[in-house]
Amino acid sequence: MIKVQFAARPERWDTYQAPLREAFAKAGLQVDLRQDHAPAEVDYVIYAPNSDLQDFTGYTACKAVLSLWAGVEKITGNTTLTQPLCRMVDPGLTAGMVEWVTGHVLRYHLDIDRSLKTQDRWDPVVPPLAQERPVTVLGLGALGAACATALAQLGFPVTGWSRSAKCIPGITCEYGDAGFARALQQAQILILLLPDTPATHNTLDAKTLSLLPKGARIINPGRGPLIEDAALLAALDSSHLAHATLDVFRQEPLPQEHPFWAHPQITVTPHIAAETRPLTASQMIVQNIQRGETGLPLLNQVNRDLGY
Amino acid sequence: MIKVQFAARPERWDTYQAPLREAFAKAGLQVDLRQDHAPAEVDYVIYAPNSDLQDFTGYTACKAVLSLWAGVEKITGNTTLTQPLCRMVDPGLTAGMVEWVTGHVLRYHLDIDRSLKTQDRWDPVVPPLAQERPVTVLGLGALGAACATALAQLGFPVTGWSRSAKCIPGITCEYGDAGFARALQQAQILILLLPDTPATHNTLDAKTLSLLPKGARIINPGRGPLIEDAALLAALDSSHLAHATLDVFRQEPLPQEHPFWAHPQITVTPHIAAETRPLTASQMIVQNIQRGETGLPLLNQVNRDLGY
Repeated sequence: MIKVQFAARPERWDTYQAPLREAFAKAGLQVDLRQDHAPAEVDYVIYAPNSDLQDFTGYTACKAVLSLWAGVEKITGNTTLTQPLCRMVDPGLTAGMVEWVTGHVLRYHLDIDRSLKTQDRWDPVVPPLAQERPVTVLGLGALGAACATALAQLGFPVTGWSRSAKCIPGITCEYGDAGFARALQQAQILILLLPDTPATHNTLDAKTLSLLPKGARIINPGRGPLIEDAALLAALDSSHLAHATLDVFRQEPLPQEHPFWAHPQITVTPHIAAETRPLTASQMIVQNIQRGETGLPLLNQVNRDLGY
Repeated sequence: MIKVQFAARPERWDTYQAPLREAFAKAGLQVDLRQDHAPAEVDYVIYAPNSDLQDFTGYTACKAVLSLWAGVEKITGNTTLTQPLCRMVDPGLTAGMVEWVTGHVLRYHLDIDRSLKTQDRWDPVVPPLAQERPVTVLGLGALGAACATALAQLGFPVTGWSRSAKCIPGITCEYGDAGFARALQQAQILILLLPDTPATHNTLDAKTLSLLPKGARIINPGRGPLIEDAALLAALDSSHLAHATLDVFRQEPLPQEHPFWAHPQITVTPHIAAETRPLTASQMIVQNIQRGETGLPLLNQVNRDLGY
């Protein structure tokens, strides 16, 4: 009998219990799934960092901690957590992110805001074709690669950038410091999908924002600290940037007094771009436990040195 | 020397002359391209129905009339035009239509209007996945099929309907009267891409609109007469329909006094969804003249009985 502890907020337990049990049954795994095992007996922990479980010292037999969240920056700082840690890569989350990013890229590309605001006259402005609109995706992990590929399929010339070299069909892949400037210099629309690590903090600051072409627009469904707030506001106010759509923030919920709320060139959305979906996330967790039990390497394991 | 007459508004001549001459040269065709040939000597007419040329009786040697427009309803009523008539199927126009339709489908799917309007509070509403959002495309010609395919690639369950049976991979294809009700009954988002013929007038009237599920949204980048204006307004006012985005109208520009302009559940766009692009359209025209000269059947020839 495999002992699995579910450690997340109570409302998550309500949502996840049924799909997890169903996925365990389908996989033919005999599992004792609970919120309250004795720590030393636990084989796997299904984990959200806002649960009560913060001290992993007693979990001496634990083979893996399986995060319900895609971003693990709130977990990797936990020094008691020495067990193998896996990020959530949920196909439902990826699909939702691709839809959200594609929708906002097309909103910018077609200037849908203008259509909605200026409904007072017949004044045709035909947008260029996607093939004339270079788009750049910073970060080519599971989410960035999926978004880049979907945008390329719609005809956008897509450049992707990642810390280390990657190769994705149909995408111009840049990497490292040298590639970073090239990736930004032609981006009419820039999408941020980098992980939140010390190295990615303030990826967009006054200096790097100045590399973007005049009139560029930014979409950040990644993490708040990727952008230096004051530098973004300055770039918008000087009209160097045309607009920003932000789904993530340094502090969430975004405080009411934050200047992003009222800025005419900023759209704030309340961290809705990527949501883990219980059905598909449960299947991923069960798949990883099955791999652990049969001696296969775990999927999406976090590299503690890199932080993701 | 092939004699080609260009019959469209003067500003079109300015736009099309260079790309047409270039495409003729590339195809190795010796062409005398002008606006003013002697009618009896003309081999081909490149045509827009708002040009001065309305009487085709003298064009006795003309092998084909090649429309610059995708919709030919303003041409097929011309009884002097007995020559083979070809519609414009421009890959640039198709790409632009796919981008416009996909953008507005995602706008509805993600409820982007709500994000833009309610930027005053942190109130997360996560949209469903595309796979939970059935979309129907009425009309499976070149444009409808391309839009249906792009939407299916994004994960939407897409139903397509056409007058006669069609088969498109990844699309649930319905046809005829029996299939029409099925195509409408589950459409959360309905896209109109039917041709403008007497048979398609008022495709959406009070009766057919009532087949749509409550809260459905409509996108019409096809032709104005496909919808009975008063029935659409009534369905929106009764909250049976949630919203409509209209790019085409019975009268264009849409008259200032028309109730569509001020309606809170209607977005009016000024016929910008599909625009013929000179570069790609010129290549299509030259390809058809080349086919005509080498005895191959013309592409996209209009069936006068059906009207498209």
